[in-house]
Amino acid sequence: MITVHLKERSYQIIAGSGVLASLGRRCAAADLGSDAFCVTDPFVKARYGKIISSSLSRAGLASTFFVAPSGEKSKSFDECRCLLEALARFDKNKRVFVVAAGGGVVGDLAGFCAAVYKRGVAYVQVPTTLLAQVDSSIGGKTAIDLKHGKNLVGAFFQPKLVLSDVSLLASLNRRQFASGMAETVKYGVISDPRLFGLLERKAGTLQSGASRELVPIIAACSRIKAGIVEKDERDETGKRIILNFGHTLGHALEAAHGYGGYTHGEAVAIGMACACDLSRRLGLLDAESAGRIERLLTSFGLPVKMRPVAFRAIAEPYLRDKKFKGKSRFVLLSKIGSPRVVEDVPLSLVREVVASRMV
Amino acid sequence: MITVHLKERSYQIIAGSGVLASLGRRCAAADLGSDAFCVTDPFVKARYGKIISSSLSRAGLASTFFVAPSGEKSKSFDECRCLLEALARFDKNKRVFVVAAGGGVVGDLAGFCAAVYKRGVAYVQVPTTLLAQVDSSIGGKTAIDLKHGKNLVGAFFQPKLVLSDVSLLASLNRRQFASGMAETVKYGVISDPRLFGLLERKAGTLQSGASRELVPIIAACSRIKAGIVEKDERDETGKRIILNFGHTLGHALEAAHGYGGYTHGEAVAIGMACACDLSRRLGLLDAESAGRIERLLTSFGLPVKMRPVAFRAIAEPYLRDKKFKGKSRFVLLSKIGSPRVVEDVPLSLVREVVASRMV
Repeated sequence: MITVHLKERSYQIIAGSGVLASLGRRCAAADLGSDAFCVTDPFVKARYGKIISSSLSRAGLASTFFVAPSGEKSKSFDECRCLLEALARFDKNKRVFVVAAGGGVVGDLAGFCAAVYKRGVAYVQVPTTLLAQVDSSIGGKTAIDLKHGKNLVGAFFQPKLVLSDVSLLASLNRRQFASGMAETVKYGVISDPRLFGLLERKAGTLQSGASRELVPIIAACSRIKAGIVEKDERDETGKRIILNFGHTLGHALEAAHGYGGYTHGEAVAIGMACACDLSRRLGLLDAESAGRIERLLTSFGLPVKMRPVAFRAIAEPYLRDKKFKGKSRFVLLSKIGSPRVVEDVPLSLVREVVASRMV
Repeated sequence: MITVHLKERSYQIIAGSGVLASLGRRCAAADLGSDAFCVTDPFVKARYGKIISSSLSRAGLASTFFVAPSGEKSKSFDECRCLLEALARFDKNKRVFVVAAGGGVVGDLAGFCAAVYKRGVAYVQVPTTLLAQVDSSIGGKTAIDLKHGKNLVGAFFQPKLVLSDVSLLASLNRRQFASGMAETVKYGVISDPRLFGLLERKAGTLQSGASRELVPIIAACSRIKAGIVEKDERDETGKRIILNFGHTLGHALEAAHGYGGYTHGEAVAIGMACACDLSRRLGLLDAESAGRIERLLTSFGLPVKMRPVAFRAIAEPYLRDKKFKGKSRFVLLSKIGSPRVVEDVPLSLVREVVASRMV
């Protein structure tokens, strides 16, 4: 059990195998309300809906399901309105709370709706993908999309509880699993050489599924993210920026390929490889560490080379910014566990590195 | 100048005559951004748009206007989406901030959009009605409506600055002016016998318009509301509840008449008269104080008797609540300046009081 210390907004993260069955008991113990509005997607509903509703019912809690379509399209204004109207209809006793059971999309949508319904009702994250368990379910960032960009509308809103059950990961395909592992590598790289070493030792056996061996890894990642979020809850002090290691180019790559070309983790893996190259070129990082990072990513089946794409498409966010003066901020690395924010990386160097990473 | 002390969310309220011309300078001094997205309604835009844009321009700030239709219908999901998309289009330099120039509807809509756009951008309140100047612009409650109820979707989000210019009140009609005065009476009644006395002395001359004599009254009300909000920013500790004096029945009356029958202030005036009756019946309040309050309301042209309506329509929110046991919480009065929260007012007594206040 990990506690995220944020004064009156503190909450606990429970990582384990089979913990989903304790959902109702934990919600009741935390006195979140009497009526659980469970947001999920069709796949999660079909596979885990029964466990969720019977756990809630055993604890004396009423529940209903709101099933959002799978995929990013659910993070829309229309879906958000639809959810809020269903929530208002369900909220007869004024003791409603929200359970977000799904991946990052469900967590973002349900978390945002919980943040704004009646100016905030309690919500619980039940992340069902590895990526959501180690990353998006922790930290309180919630959002929906506008046609002008992803996550443009949102709120910082902390859950009351995060329940990460590794047994739910049995249904992930290998690509989804690898996508989550990319983030675990990131946590090792930016903050925890011991976690990095553990991942190196386990890489051969941890290839998919719901292994109990994931529990300490998920717990370690949760602890790291929680620690960073505690220092910078609202992304204001700059402490949270190291979480963006590999994400500057990763996000750009996702956008350049129109979301769908790469999974988030795949794009971040390539982004981390590029960040290592930049760190090497700037004389910050030794070749051996860079090599270890690249090998670890590869061992999880993650790409470190990218399919050809116009550099302009990747650099578009910079070029659109009127104040851009040819240099940009990157999270780089001086060694494994020691990130470093470099303010003035020349775009020309980024271009060279990206070119050398194209297949 | 009044400071609302909320740590890093502290802000200032400026009340004066002609202060709108200083908007740009004050926004620039507070370093809110470079691009002002001004939300307003057709009437305010026509009358004060020039002053706003030229003040911003003199301070070197770019600006654009978003004109929402007048009235509560603008607090809709559709208008909110429309506003956010326009804001995203305007936000090219990533230094955007929001100016809400209008009454309560504009303040609620623009404030909510500022709260959720990119998880929060700075906003400034320029309230243009007396009601907004003394009440809704202060305290950080923002919201839009769902078809299931008013203000069901919202956020607590503090402005960076409130600019209350009494010269903008010249265009209010007498009914709008009286609606604002109902809230000033409330502040005197719940918290400030001196303000109440001042209102009694000025009642004869303060009947409408943009009198400078309103400045100390608006300042006093702002100070009272700010002090209460400081103690209970998110409506959690119960301190904020005294602001609901006259509002329990006031809101019910507005809803029962389908919004539009009474202005907010008129409904609250009747609600305050009923709250005084309840206080009298429970032996809390003397007849002389109750008489002074009723006379003061009447002197501003506010109603203290209601048009006939089925009591069921007024009591509907209670009756819908499964846990309602025939008693309800009211903010009552033991003397002018001394509110008292009474938990178990029998609905039967409320029914009697309401019946005796029907014309």
